[in-house]
Amino acid sequence: IAKEVAKLLEMKAQLGGDEGKHKFVLKTPKGTRDYSPKQMAIRERVFNAIITCFKRHGAEVIDTPVFELKETLTGKYGEDSKLIYDLKDQGGELLSLRYDLTVPFARYLAMNKITNIKRYHIAKVYRRDNPAMTRGRYREFYQCDFDIAGQFDPMIPDAECLKIVHEILSDLQLGDFLIKVNDRRILDGMFAVCGVPDSKFRTICSSVDKLDKMPWEEVRSEMVGEKGLSPEAADHIGEYVQLHGEHCGVEPVALIQHLPREQVAPDSAGASQLAAVYLTHSYQLSCRAGHCLCPASARLAVPELLGADPWEALGCGGTVSRQKLAGKLLILSISSNLRIPAAQEGDYASEEKIRTTETQVLVASAQKKLLEERLKLISELWDAGIKAEVLYKKNPKLLNQLQYCEDTGIPLVAIVGEQELKDGVVKLRVVATREEVNVRRESLVEEIRMRTSRP
Amino acid sequence: IAKEVAKLLEMKAQLGGDEGKHKFVLKTPKGTRDYSPKQMAIRERVFNAIITCFKRHGAEVIDTPVFELKETLTGKYGEDSKLIYDLKDQGGELLSLRYDLTVPFARYLAMNKITNIKRYHIAKVYRRDNPAMTRGRYREFYQCDFDIAGQFDPMIPDAECLKIVHEILSDLQLGDFLIKVNDRRILDGMFAVCGVPDSKFRTICSSVDKLDKMPWEEVRSEMVGEKGLSPEAADHIGEYVQLHGEHCGVEPVALIQHLPREQVAPDSAGASQLAAVYLTHSYQLSCRAGHCLCPASARLAVPELLGADPWEALGCGGTVSRQKLAGKLLILSISSNLRIPAAQEGDYASEEKIRTTETQVLVASAQKKLLEERLKLISELWDAGIKAEVLYKKNPKLLNQLQYCEDTGIPLVAIVGEQELKDGVVKLRVVATREEVNVRRESLVEEIRMRTSRP
Repeated sequence: IAKEVAKLLEMKAQLGGDEGKHKFVLKTPKGTRDYSPKQMAIRERVFNAIITCFKRHGAEVIDTPVFELKETLTGKYGEDSKLIYDLKDQGGELLSLRYDLTVPFARYLAMNKITNIKRYHIAKVYRRDNPAMTRGRYREFYQCDFDIAGQFDPMIPDAECLKIVHEILSDLQLGDFLIKVNDRRILDGMFAVCGVPDSKFRTICSSVDKLDKMPWEEVRSEMVGEKGLSPEAADHIGEYVQLHGEHCGVEPVALIQHLPREQVAPDSAGASQLAAVYLTHSYQLSCRAGHCLCPASARLAVPELLGADPWEALGCGGTVSRQKLAGKLLILSISSNLRIPAAQEGDYASEEKIRTTETQVLVASAQKKLLEERLKLISELWDAGIKAEVLYKKNPKLLNQLQYCEDTGIPLVAIVGEQELKDGVVKLRVVATREEVNVRRESLVEEIRMRTSRP
Repeated sequence: IAKEVAKLLEMKAQLGGDEGKHKFVLKTPKGTRDYSPKQMAIRERVFNAIITCFKRHGAEVIDTPVFELKETLTGKYGEDSKLIYDLKDQGGELLSLRYDLTVPFARYLAMNKITNIKRYHIAKVYRRDNPAMTRGRYREFYQCDFDIAGQFDPMIPDAECLKIVHEILSDLQLGDFLIKVNDRRILDGMFAVCGVPDSKFRTICSSVDKLDKMPWEEVRSEMVGEKGLSPEAADHIGEYVQLHGEHCGVEPVALIQHLPREQVAPDSAGASQLAAVYLTHSYQLSCRAGHCLCPASARLAVPELLGADPWEALGCGGTVSRQKLAGKLLILSISSNLRIPAAQEGDYASEEKIRTTETQVLVASAQKKLLEERLKLISELWDAGIKAEVLYKKNPKLLNQLQYCEDTGIPLVAIVGEQELKDGVVKLRVVATREEVNVRRESLVEEIRMRTSRP
């Protein structure tokens, strides 16, 4: 226990500007950030919207350690494996920080022999990437994963995942958005038609995937130059890609009609139509341009924000994917990288005053020698569940107490005075209007609750 | 994006028992654990109690990265430094996982030149300790820290910290508890009286600190043998230690009376009395054995649970400490290590059925071909904020749907049928009582809300 004290004494020595031999290096590691109370208030708001939605859909929640055995992660991320943070070998097991939440989830399922679960997991993941912090890309960032694992009748949970994405994006009021729906089997059919050899499906898929970041010409030259695809096959892919314009505004069924029937997996058209039925008829979602095929994506669905606003960079460009494990266990995933750039949070915060506490009332006094009475009153309020603060001064000035409320957004002040104590009342002041009323002490809790309840 | 697919394909290959060349090692790293949905439900309940209390006292919240620059942690933890997890040098900065939340907090304050803040921080910390997982001691575990940093009039925030500890322990209903209150200056006075040289204060403090784990004889021989304290000084300390019995039931003021006046810091007696006034008079806390001095602790206050119950091992033996940084900034800390042993969670969970979801209603049907109608109804419920689930089957049996509610604790079933659809009603079944009522569709949301609101 005394170690803590020793440690603090060390810190004291180090912080003390005078001695200052060992100065703190005052920075967070590259690509990481602290969250200030203001940024935490925004984060809480976003997480609340997401968690509320996940719970509304009956999801459980799990948590896994921040690191895994190194071999659990080995071979799971292809060329991105170089971005994994390894821990130093200090004797014992070799460990790595998690790179995503999907591999730990798969490990959890296998370890506990779970074949049926609907769970969410919101946690930080780690990638030794080149951070672009101005765009909200960090080396430590949150993922919000929702997965349905099990065996189900076709497309029912798939449609629910899209509904969830729709609910969250609507709830966050991020502006207009478009959810691109795809079916990997259609992409495979397209590759087959274009003459891509089976062995190159995956690597060519990675190239096509870059179309949102690179022009077609560059993607084509990567396919042909680096990956050894024939120029004819590449050009054939190009025809399909260019068929679909900027927002890929072609319905899956329409693309299927461009492909020879024998190249399309027998139920892929049916599956797309089935999903569309659930989405439009049952969930009443608009399916105009909203649900279309983007051949550039191997995911089931990718939401994309249209237009720019302070929240745009939330990085809600999550994805819904669908994959079978061990040939039978289907996992449907919604994965969203939350990448809120600090700068944009600032913009947002300045527009709308964001409170960093939920304090309902400051317990104050106008006269001296009332500290114990202030403490007695605040204790009553705390015990009744009221969020309350008091200044840690024996005899604070009333003006300073009112100023504190202005600075922190506390809406009410409960003022204790000699006369009020005698009369069994408390003076309640509304900070915004400067209105003051005497409230009987036994009604104070109810009065504060009433005045601070959200409409 | 396609990387994800590639990764999942890899996982598929690895999980597929047939090929199974590279088998997953199905374990979490030594000293760590997953949290199952049931364990998460308990964790959420505990965190809610703690966070609600911290917010009630007007605290803000911050977050810092899981790792810090290695040099930020260097020299802060004495001989415990060997327990720090270092990251591998992969080029770039040398990093370590945080060992506690105090050093990152101090780094945050210094970096942002903050001199006044009341914040909490709940996060995982990492110690390469020898885990005793049956006792809830892990290498990855949560700390819940609440700190008040600033300059204040004496003992006001100190008393508030004790009130907070009292509120949280009461709220968690952990059983009877005792908060041991101390003043480091009294301990220093005692050392001076006993003839401990100034240079040995810290190391002798560490030894005395072990009295809760070791008998006095062992502590004494560590002081004399390893640390070179004179046998006379050690025996003198022993007199004081033995003066205080098992629960150290001596009030600070009483111990002070045993010490020569000139050896006690002038305001330490006054400070203790002042804190006692705030605690007993203003906060009306019982101060019988409850607030006493334990010379074995260098902390301001250490709560200790009396008696055993399933929650005992929560490890709520947090501490309140008080230290100045840079000679002026006072930090008051409440730090609690949450160490919930998985086994005891199980005990607890079996006594009381713990739900892992909050689902209010299952949307079901008794007849076939009503999937789209089920989806339509559940969509209405979701959009109204009702937590609802549906089985992902085209034509599930009613019995299976009811069984699902029994298994997961969903209290209500909304049953869609041909006749009900015609009549504009939904059959609402209460799972516990098997009572069934027809509810008009437009009243369904209100009816579900009413029947599932907590009393």
